[in-house]
Amino acid sequence: MNVEVRDPLVLFMPSGKRGRFPIGTSVLDAARQLGVYVESVCGGRATCGRCQIEVQEGNFAKHKIISSLEHISPKGPKEDRYERVRGLPEGRRLSCSATVQGDLVVDVPQDTVINAQVVRKAAVDRHIERNPAVQLCYVEVDEPDMHKPLGDLDRLKHVLEKDWGWKDLLTTPHLIPQVQGILRKENWGVTVAIHRDTETSQPVIIAMWPGLKNEAYGIACDIGSTTIAMHLVSLLSGRIVASSGASNPQIRFGEDLMSRVSYVMMNPDGREAMTKAVREAVNTLIGKVCEEGGIDRHDILDSVFVANPIMHHLFLGIDPTELGQAPFALAVSGALQYWAHEIDLDLNQGARLYTLPCIAGHVGADAAGATLSEGPYRQDKMMLLVDVGTNAEIILGNRARVVAASSPTGPAFEGAEISGGQRAAPGAIERVRIDPDTLEPRFRVIGVDKWSDESGFEEAVGAVGVTGICGSAIIEVVAEMYLAGIISEDGVVDGEMAARSPRVFQDGRTFSYLLREGEPRLVITQRDVRAIQLAKAALYAGVKLLMEKQGVDHVDMIRFAGAFGSFIDPKYAMVLGLIPDCDLAEVKAVGNASGTGALMALLNRGHRREIEDEVHRIEKIETALEPHFQQIFIDAMALPNKVDPFPKLAEAVKLPPRKVLAEAETGEATPRRRSREERAARRGRA
Amino acid sequence: MNVEVRDPLVLFMPSGKRGRFPIGTSVLDAARQLGVYVESVCGGRATCGRCQIEVQEGNFAKHKIISSLEHISPKGPKEDRYERVRGLPEGRRLSCSATVQGDLVVDVPQDTVINAQVVRKAAVDRHIERNPAVQLCYVEVDEPDMHKPLGDLDRLKHVLEKDWGWKDLLTTPHLIPQVQGILRKENWGVTVAIHRDTETSQPVIIAMWPGLKNEAYGIACDIGSTTIAMHLVSLLSGRIVASSGASNPQIRFGEDLMSRVSYVMMNPDGREAMTKAVREAVNTLIGKVCEEGGIDRHDILDSVFVANPIMHHLFLGIDPTELGQAPFALAVSGALQYWAHEIDLDLNQGARLYTLPCIAGHVGADAAGATLSEGPYRQDKMMLLVDVGTNAEIILGNRARVVAASSPTGPAFEGAEISGGQRAAPGAIERVRIDPDTLEPRFRVIGVDKWSDESGFEEAVGAVGVTGICGSAIIEVVAEMYLAGIISEDGVVDGEMAARSPRVFQDGRTFSYLLREGEPRLVITQRDVRAIQLAKAALYAGVKLLMEKQGVDHVDMIRFAGAFGSFIDPKYAMVLGLIPDCDLAEVKAVGNASGTGALMALLNRGHRREIEDEVHRIEKIETALEPHFQQIFIDAMALPNKVDPFPKLAEAVKLPPRKVLAEAETGEATPRRRSREERAARRGRA
Repeated sequence: MNVEVRDPLVLFMPSGKRGRFPIGTSVLDAARQLGVYVESVCGGRATCGRCQIEVQEGNFAKHKIISSLEHISPKGPKEDRYERVRGLPEGRRLSCSATVQGDLVVDVPQDTVINAQVVRKAAVDRHIERNPAVQLCYVEVDEPDMHKPLGDLDRLKHVLEKDWGWKDLLTTPHLIPQVQGILRKENWGVTVAIHRDTETSQPVIIAMWPGLKNEAYGIACDIGSTTIAMHLVSLLSGRIVASSGASNPQIRFGEDLMSRVSYVMMNPDGREAMTKAVREAVNTLIGKVCEEGGIDRHDILDSVFVANPIMHHLFLGIDPTELGQAPFALAVSGALQYWAHEIDLDLNQGARLYTLPCIAGHVGADAAGATLSEGPYRQDKMMLLVDVGTNAEIILGNRARVVAASSPTGPAFEGAEISGGQRAAPGAIERVRIDPDTLEPRFRVIGVDKWSDESGFEEAVGAVGVTGICGSAIIEVVAEMYLAGIISEDGVVDGEMAARSPRVFQDGRTFSYLLREGEPRLVITQRDVRAIQLAKAALYAGVKLLMEKQGVDHVDMIRFAGAFGSFIDPKYAMVLGLIPDCDLAEVKAVGNASGTGALMALLNRGHRREIEDEVHRIEKIETALEPHFQQIFIDAMALPNKVDPFPKLAEAVKLPPRKVLAEAETGEATPRRRSREERAARRGRA
Repeated sequence: MNVEVRDPLVLFMPSGKRGRFPIGTSVLDAARQLGVYVESVCGGRATCGRCQIEVQEGNFAKHKIISSLEHISPKGPKEDRYERVRGLPEGRRLSCSATVQGDLVVDVPQDTVINAQVVRKAAVDRHIERNPAVQLCYVEVDEPDMHKPLGDLDRLKHVLEKDWGWKDLLTTPHLIPQVQGILRKENWGVTVAIHRDTETSQPVIIAMWPGLKNEAYGIACDIGSTTIAMHLVSLLSGRIVASSGASNPQIRFGEDLMSRVSYVMMNPDGREAMTKAVREAVNTLIGKVCEEGGIDRHDILDSVFVANPIMHHLFLGIDPTELGQAPFALAVSGALQYWAHEIDLDLNQGARLYTLPCIAGHVGADAAGATLSEGPYRQDKMMLLVDVGTNAEIILGNRARVVAASSPTGPAFEGAEISGGQRAAPGAIERVRIDPDTLEPRFRVIGVDKWSDESGFEEAVGAVGVTGICGSAIIEVVAEMYLAGIISEDGVVDGEMAARSPRVFQDGRTFSYLLREGEPRLVITQRDVRAIQLAKAALYAGVKLLMEKQGVDHVDMIRFAGAFGSFIDPKYAMVLGLIPDCDLAEVKAVGNASGTGALMALLNRGHRREIEDEVHRIEKIETALEPHFQQIFIDAMALPNKVDPFPKLAEAVKLPPRKVLAEAETGEATPRRRSREERAARRGRA
């Protein structure tokens, strides 16, 4: 009988990659041969502890593997020594020392923490496979030899090729005068950081330390018009060390993007001042996350930035004026590579900086980050991804095709242009319900648990008081007014309701709804409703145009990116017709998806190539140039829409009977309203 | 009968490359297909005029080509326009417009000058095939398009790929904010400079101009301990625009290299001060060559530097202390790439800087430059290449093998340590002859045509007077003293000769030779002769060791690099036994070969790879570690040598009969002399 003896089978989790390896192969080598990323700084000396793995014991019938601790070699002297000196958690092994002795299921843990620092809860609830652009490599360099007079740096490069396979290494100039000292300090043992991003780029030694350096960090940053958000993360484990945010100090030059562009146009040093301001703010925020994480900012070796096009240009020192007028020409749209010091960032002197590509003149690197994070192009379902701010970025697509556009929603969703509107802050109303029978409202305020009709509410509100209405509540109050029949589907506040409740009252030539008596007195006016209608119609019209481009009459899933998306209730957004009809279970807020995309690009350079390629494929639609944009916009002024059905919404929410009020009934002169709507439509196209 | 019709044959000169091309092929395309480097900035628009060629008419029997002006297309409208507007020399054609119509012999001229500047005589008498690391490319960029919202820079890269084949282009960060303005200034026509050195390096856009930019420059620089030499050259034609030199201001920190290393060791800011001094001197010299050439320093886009190891390190900001003691460890030996601004050079902001590799701790990038220039490894003959300074670099080899060493000759050859010695300058004696019968000398002085025994000499010398003896004359006077029998083969001034002429006279315990009465009185003392013997023995011993390594008893050719080599008479050098026996016709001075090597590396990046590869192959011999160095050194103290025959020299020069004077006869105590020689031998090893 002929019994075939086969090499042991090793399965790595969570990647699921598997292969057969001769007995005696180190688990680290097995992982590398399969392309499973297991970190190792010390190059198999069992000193860095980065290459930890865990054997899963048991009969894995699905994989036909019986995995056992008997199938991995016992700890040898080097691993014993590491365990004794540095400690090794129960069940953990060093994959550089442990060898394959039989079939194995090997778990590559994502939480390998070497230094005794506080482990924080991941700010991003997602497993990002690591393949960073920066790698640490420890080597021991030959001493100088008169007979082979290679320079210190040259012998270092030689051993980096021999031990790690690095060829044609460049060196950042600032390190060259330091090589002698660093090599001699720890007896020719040295750790270098090597940066290599694309396959066509030459690898570069960007940092160097005497002896074993066992940690390196990166930052992922989203520069928004109002807020700058940042993650500080270990490049060696992927662990998020700190996450924080700060205000964009450019606000002092102008609240919104266009006013900042105007500032540049009006002031000779305006661009420079704004560039300086945002770079300083980023540096300050770096200091903040480093302090939180208890790390030295000079241990940061890589950084990834996303931003909207105007912030992107200003951060990089580019005049954004062209972005303020057609054809909205970006100075640069592709991904960019910098030394961080070229952008005045105070990190390690050799730290790198990468910016994600911009999709179009109004759809920036932040939208590219969100696209990378949510990945409409990675799936078959039709995904709508929207990031609502004063400008809404809209991405719609699936594996086959992705289209993108932006819509000028204006600041209404952020509480501006609304009587009683304010930014989300303690004291702001964030939730509103209106009783359809009594038309009485109840609401909740940021920072207070109770609803306004619950006992103890006023005491709980206390000194802060109720100060205004934030964006999410504006959506809800208009939607609830519609559901209660206070406004018609055309958005007219129905004067006849004044007979049913004193909360509806004549307010000049139109009617208003009294949300709260007191100081301040909070009223929803006809003008407020119109502002919301204009904003939501602009957004919906953009979405609708993209749906037409895709040839679909519905979307399968909706993702709300950004702070606004995190606070609004998808149901009310749909009642308003801000987003198209969709199964409510498939509508989700994804938080700062742009920042998550930046983090992905930081931890895995494969994601950089992925989004660079994808941005080339994405079709950009300039909504203003579409001939029927105006009609779509006008239809979208209605609640939820003049022409589009909302069957899934109707299943979830009891929509009011259709009530169309002729505008004349409200006392408004038709011609003036019409022309205002037309102006708005034109504004949507500008 | 079957007549085969073949495509026309085109032969390019001076490269000799040839090939057949279909009728109608542009001559530029034909050249490119054969790998003949013909410049073109405008990309075939017939506007830059860089691609000029000349048709050689006639029957080239050797090549079986009948070349005729009938075999090239007549000038078309674009070429006519260029000729009308910019002028085209008689016989010249634009190869981008002219097409092949029959067999052709095409001359690619090396002197194509586009701008009306003074054409200078080439400082380097050599044809260097051009293949520079920097290339200018003119393109016309698409205007921005809302439907395809690629950024300005991205559209520029797109057309650079389409028109010129550049892929994966990077851009220097300082250009990114300028792209918008530059593209719009000349209606989207732009010239970019692209740098690509090695095959593995990613090409980078380093400079950018609106419209057609039709000139770019480079500098090649040799930083010597005492002198900095520089060529300014057109990267587009290879034409040398200016060549100049300046003193190395580091002299104020120490005359020779070792005293500068001491200065670094003794002074905390010594390294920094010397780095600053040499960089400032280089910047000043750049200003000087630019002024001479009438060009703007910001049009310089590339630079190549050579230097001895200590100058190399100091220029790059590296502490040279390690080079002052065994094992003479270089911080870096390989070729290096910088941005010129990283070395504080004031050139174009995107200019590059390349340094040639160092061969060993005492054999620097300057020796590598000389090796590249003279190319022992490019031929079958055994070539000895020496560069004599206070340290002599010695390269010996041929195609099969090259070995290198350095010898500490000391400053005697430069006139130091010699009574009456001085640097080469007006007033210094540069040539000496001694009548073997009368022992009367005659000499020539720098700046004066007449010999000292010719009438009118004293008038011609005039106010400057005769001030001292420079290095070349020291060689000659000692050699002539030997030929005249004044000194023995052991270098002893023969006291018996005092009886024949009052010019030989007792001078303390030894005898001296009176070269010139007057002020100053110039005397050659026994001590002077010994100093020359020590220096020449150190050099010869190094050469001899390398010959032993090569297993040869003679060399086929000798090349003297450096200023010293340009002034000495090879015959006298050989009489002294400074160099080994060789056919005198094969001994040549090659001037600043290091600088020529730098120029070659500037104009052709192929030469960079060539010398990088060659330096890896060169075997470095540390003469001090060779066990019989001392014996070889002592044998080399004799004139021309104690043991080595000089048959070729004997054919050319009447050598005196052997005369060995016991040292005791001179009145010197043997033990003291011996120990001094031994000390010298040890010094040679240190």
